Amino acid sequence: MSSPANPTTRVACHTSAPRIGDLAGNCDRSVDAVRAAVAAGADLVVLPELVTSGYVFASVEEAAGVAIGPDHDVFTRWARAAGDAVVVGGFCERGCGGTLFNSAAVVDRTGVLAVYRKLHLWDEEKRFFAAGDELPPVLDVRFGRLAPLICYDLEFPELTRHLALAGAEVLAVPTNWPLGPRPDGERPPEVVIAMAAARVNRVVVVCCDRTGTERGQRWTAGTTVVGADGWPVAVQDEGLLVTDVDLAPTRDKRLTERAHLFEDRRTDLY
Amino acid sequence: MSSPANPTTRVACHTSAPRIGDLAGNCDRSVDAVRAAVAAGADLVVLPELVTSGYVFASVEEAAGVAIGPDHDVFTRWARAAGDAVVVGGFCERGCGGTLFNSAAVVDRTGVLAVYRKLHLWDEEKRFFAAGDELPPVLDVRFGRLAPLICYDLEFPELTRHLALAGAEVLAVPTNWPLGPRPDGERPPEVVIAMAAARVNRVVVVCCDRTGTERGQRWTAGTTVVGADGWPVAVQDEGLLVTDVDLAPTRDKRLTERAHLFEDRRTDLY
Repeated sequence: MSSPANPTTRVACHTSAPRIGDLAGNCDRSVDAVRAAVAAGADLVVLPELVTSGYVFASVEEAAGVAIGPDHDVFTRWARAAGDAVVVGGFCERGCGGTLFNSAAVVDRTGVLAVYRKLHLWDEEKRFFAAGDELPPVLDVRFGRLAPLICYDLEFPELTRHLALAGAEVLAVPTNWPLGPRPDGERPPEVVIAMAAARVNRVVVVCCDRTGTERGQRWTAGTTVVGADGWPVAVQDEGLLVTDVDLAPTRDKRLTERAHLFEDRRTDLY
Repeated sequence: MSSPANPTTRVACHTSAPRIGDLAGNCDRSVDAVRAAVAAGADLVVLPELVTSGYVFASVEEAAGVAIGPDHDVFTRWARAAGDAVVVGGFCERGCGGTLFNSAAVVDRTGVLAVYRKLHLWDEEKRFFAAGDELPPVLDVRFGRLAPLICYDLEFPELTRHLALAGAEVLAVPTNWPLGPRPDGERPPEVVIAMAAARVNRVVVVCCDRTGTERGQRWTAGTTVVGADGWPVAVQDEGLLVTDVDLAPTRDKRLTERAHLFEDRRTDLY
């Protein structure tokens, strides 16, 4: 809980393995994850991308079969389980006219605060989803200013910069990072990108990844919470991660008396 | 040497400790460094920021006393020593009317190809230098397309993105990174930022740092060459680093059949 006496924010991520097509089971398990996170005192709960549906769709029809709207019961259940927390999780969204989006819902006890539709679709996602056409919202929530992003979005520094300039203090990033090769001892490359985004913008970045193997696709299971100084605070490859982060530094972009992350930009030139 | 049979580019960085105010000695040592790098077969030689002057000036007058123009003899000597290589190194520049700039010269056997004036001045540098007012050039050189940056410039993703979009394949970055705290086992934070810049733009980033202690200021000595995939190829804390990098991947920004680093940007929104 965030309070003057304890100004840190408790963040929880639940790294799970959604089952492709199992909407009811995935929803049940996501509600259980929210309950567990809230029981651990979380202020912010982040779940993976497409946590209600799974990722590796065989066809548009299959994706459509597990697509839901923001009025779906799962979000009511997240809201009921949320207590004082804010929940951010991914889902396969059915929009007007049946268009599908790779979306994230932001939910608190009052219900759905916002739905964000992924702007940067990765690879085969372009077969199933339409890209969103609105920048992520920056939401004033109880503990600070929160913006959702989804997975590949994070790899566009234009977007992370935009959100930091718009006042976001914490980026909540549901992800499904496909496992790729990397040198021994290195973090996933997406985490390096998250660390740099955190550092150059002085924001907290909470990446909740998935685990398991789905139709032959292996996942990174690279859930990582990055502090405002750019260093990882906690990592987890499965289950519930709970950690405390300090959002206060995000509110001052001054590096030294004469250096400032935002004021030093050369907006006259780029 | 770059050739069809051996398409890699040999990069050399010389991590040294310039002596504050010792223009003649620093120049001599910089020429020695170019000679050693060229003898090792370098196609590209990168030297630290302000390698001719040192960094921690006590006064504007002291900086002015070691400021030079692009017609200074040291650049003629770099050119004579360059062989087939391109040399990028930092210097304290005296501009028209005596204005001082924190600049980098790009030199080949024909002489000075370009002078770039640092756009983002770090902290106390603002007491001594005027900021440049032109974006770095992207130069067609023998082995590829090269752009110079200086130190803190690298921490503005707008600029690295701009240069990659403008066709830069390798960023040559003279730096003087002040040593700061970081968790045990971590790279310097500037290297993390360089890795992310390399990865999201698929460019090679060559950071040549300095070493030593100057008027109480300790330096990171974090010289690092980052490949186009975002992973460090080589690091060195003192003396001559020589390593081979492949610029070919920088010429194709496609990640998968349906994902592309540049085409996936949402320039309609940011």
